[in-house]
Amino acid sequence: MKNLQEYREQAVKADREDALREFRSYFKTQESLIYFDGNSLGMLPLASEEAARQLISRAWGERLIRGWNEGWWDMPLRVSGKLAQLTGCTRDEIIACDSTSVNLYKLVSAAVKMQKGRKKIVSDNLNFPSDLYIIQGVMESINDGHILEMVRSANGIDIDYGRLYDSIDDNTAVTVLSYVSFRSAFMYDMKKVTDYVHKKGALIIWDISHATGAVKIDLNSAGADMAVGCTYKYLNGGPGSPAFMYVNRKLQDKVVSPIWAWLGEKDPFEFSLDYRPSEGVRRYMTGSPNILSLCTLEPSLDIILEAGIDNLRKKSLKLTRFMLELYHAYLEPLGFGLGSPEKDDERGSHISLKHKEGYRICKALIDDSRGKYVIIPDFRPPDNIRMGLAPLYNRFEEVLEVILEIENIVKNRIYELYDTDTGSVT
Amino acid sequence: MKNLQEYREQAVKADREDALREFRSYFKTQESLIYFDGNSLGMLPLASEEAARQLISRAWGERLIRGWNEGWWDMPLRVSGKLAQLTGCTRDEIIACDSTSVNLYKLVSAAVKMQKGRKKIVSDNLNFPSDLYIIQGVMESINDGHILEMVRSANGIDIDYGRLYDSIDDNTAVTVLSYVSFRSAFMYDMKKVTDYVHKKGALIIWDISHATGAVKIDLNSAGADMAVGCTYKYLNGGPGSPAFMYVNRKLQDKVVSPIWAWLGEKDPFEFSLDYRPSEGVRRYMTGSPNILSLCTLEPSLDIILEAGIDNLRKKSLKLTRFMLELYHAYLEPLGFGLGSPEKDDERGSHISLKHKEGYRICKALIDDSRGKYVIIPDFRPPDNIRMGLAPLYNRFEEVLEVILEIENIVKNRIYELYDTDTGSVT
Repeated sequence: MKNLQEYREQAVKADREDALREFRSYFKTQESLIYFDGNSLGMLPLASEEAARQLISRAWGERLIRGWNEGWWDMPLRVSGKLAQLTGCTRDEIIACDSTSVNLYKLVSAAVKMQKGRKKIVSDNLNFPSDLYIIQGVMESINDGHILEMVRSANGIDIDYGRLYDSIDDNTAVTVLSYVSFRSAFMYDMKKVTDYVHKKGALIIWDISHATGAVKIDLNSAGADMAVGCTYKYLNGGPGSPAFMYVNRKLQDKVVSPIWAWLGEKDPFEFSLDYRPSEGVRRYMTGSPNILSLCTLEPSLDIILEAGIDNLRKKSLKLTRFMLELYHAYLEPLGFGLGSPEKDDERGSHISLKHKEGYRICKALIDDSRGKYVIIPDFRPPDNIRMGLAPLYNRFEEVLEVILEIENIVKNRIYELYDTDTGSVT
Repeated sequence: MKNLQEYREQAVKADREDALREFRSYFKTQESLIYFDGNSLGMLPLASEEAARQLISRAWGERLIRGWNEGWWDMPLRVSGKLAQLTGCTRDEIIACDSTSVNLYKLVSAAVKMQKGRKKIVSDNLNFPSDLYIIQGVMESINDGHILEMVRSANGIDIDYGRLYDSIDDNTAVTVLSYVSFRSAFMYDMKKVTDYVHKKGALIIWDISHATGAVKIDLNSAGADMAVGCTYKYLNGGPGSPAFMYVNRKLQDKVVSPIWAWLGEKDPFEFSLDYRPSEGVRRYMTGSPNILSLCTLEPSLDIILEAGIDNLRKKSLKLTRFMLELYHAYLEPLGFGLGSPEKDDERGSHISLKHKEGYRICKALIDDSRGKYVIIPDFRPPDNIRMGLAPLYNRFEEVLEVILEIENIVKNRIYELYDTDTGSVT
């Protein structure tokens, strides 16, 4: 085992040699803050701050309604073109709109309708709960004898492919999975699962919320049918920024969203009384796009494209690997458990550290009245301290600082100074 | 008929005596701009500009994920409480979320489900097309023999109550109407229609997008079942700001949205695998709220509440009456037609002036290379020059300037200098 000095040198060297180290300066940073929550809300790109200022003061404030012809109308499509580059599809297969939940609702409804006679929807218990709620709502709504079969993880970390495959059969209409799990960061083999699902005649919908911007995604190569995701995590779109949805071009004529609305109409400004879906993916849009948040999202996508998703994945793996190494050295001996996969190709860009006092440890980390740094992870019940490592702006030295501080909090029982009351958002 | 000098004096006097005249200074204005498009996109409140700056730089930029516990989580509910005061309902009956289309989808789906056996949905052809598309999508989606019966306006301006009532019968599940029509500004008697609908055992959903903020609305007194609306028109929320939905408290246990999602769950941060609807109206929320736009919306609602909706309606009627008077004096003789109701209690806050060269007249008005003012109305096919008179910031002198400029453009055939090509957004 290395000693602390060796870990320090390792971190310093890794930061010095980091090909992406300059990208941190594109963000609003604070010396005393270590932010490991980019997997819940990404940091603010300085260019987004300026873009919002321009949009509000100039475009809205001075150009007013003319703004629609001076960029706003095309904004969702332009931004979606950049999302396409990050997710391995073409610009007419992905559209930024609505929330992940609403987009998933459109797609699950459409998928079930396309698969008449097949009554099973397959998901797993590592999936984001809202995805399961959406499925439950669709089933209740159509009331046609569908069932949700939930594949259970044996360890709360990963899913056994054998168990998953046992659930996918001739009665399966659609399989809905998170590509990277929100709690453990477990990552599926997208192509392998998609191929199996197709072999059984089922459809697949991937939720790529916890992957996009940190993990290489290639929807087209994997042959994915549909996907949804959000933009406020590794994509740094800001609080409540719009989600997106993907529909493979081959399926666009068959995937009929139940929500027929203005922005998806062929020519919204003709004000026709009968809905005619527009060409391509735009037909899945509903009402007015969220212009302010699209405008803060776009500069961040430009930064990610400049950095290159392969480089981001490479650095992300280095960061998580370093954290795993430090976990084994410092935290495992203190009674921590690991809530994330050890294998690189099964892991997204966050690490869950499990401890029965996880919630109070998080409170101690975040407390700005003590220590050199405010450290922000987040907490996911029952006991996961979730560390989101954002390769655009997180540093190896930060990883070391955080692990040492957790060691300090647990060794010295500092967490006992905190209560277990939960705030609204954790 | 008065002469021009008399109209000038009338306008100057009305502006001088305007109890709301100071409210214009709360907005970002331009000396050379007459903005009559607040019914499509309201002007920028200076306080919204500052609120967005704070939210982006401070809350997102520095507090980051902590922002959720420092105001963001409560923001939709707080903002909705202000919407409640503007629409005559209680704060647990209205919620700002999603787009008008998505909200209407939730409500039409729920209404049809509640009304099993009744197969007719009634609307009119003055309704905003997206509302009709939503209805068409719901019908296609449930595929259970529903029909949409569209009451036709005889003159393109108003709806004959007799014809409407003929359509509402024992087979009617739900009636979906715009309280104020987007094209003509025709305004229904909300209570009278609601009473009739209820007498027939049907439900009513009001779209109050073109009314809220300019017209007094009293959803509870009218006994309205459900309603939807947007916030970027007279409510000045900014481009793509969130919509809202209302469900009468008495119906909240019966109105089941088909979209079961995270934010509508009882305790989203428990991450339960089974959906349990939250208490009250919050259950109709879906994914993450659009924080940036809620933050620009809130200061505007404060301004409207400070001005008082009764005062706003009073001034709005004075403005539209003045425009009607000038229309009869200057434009009717030039071959213009009136596309809006003359009676005060049938008219919202905009006036449609009809002319076969309407589109080119709009182009001439907007052209910033000629005249003292850039004048911005908008155009709605086939021939409506739509003048949105926003009582918070529009002035009587502006009304006179605009009518005189239209007279000039038509008398001197200035519109012939412009082509008939349409931009994306009109």
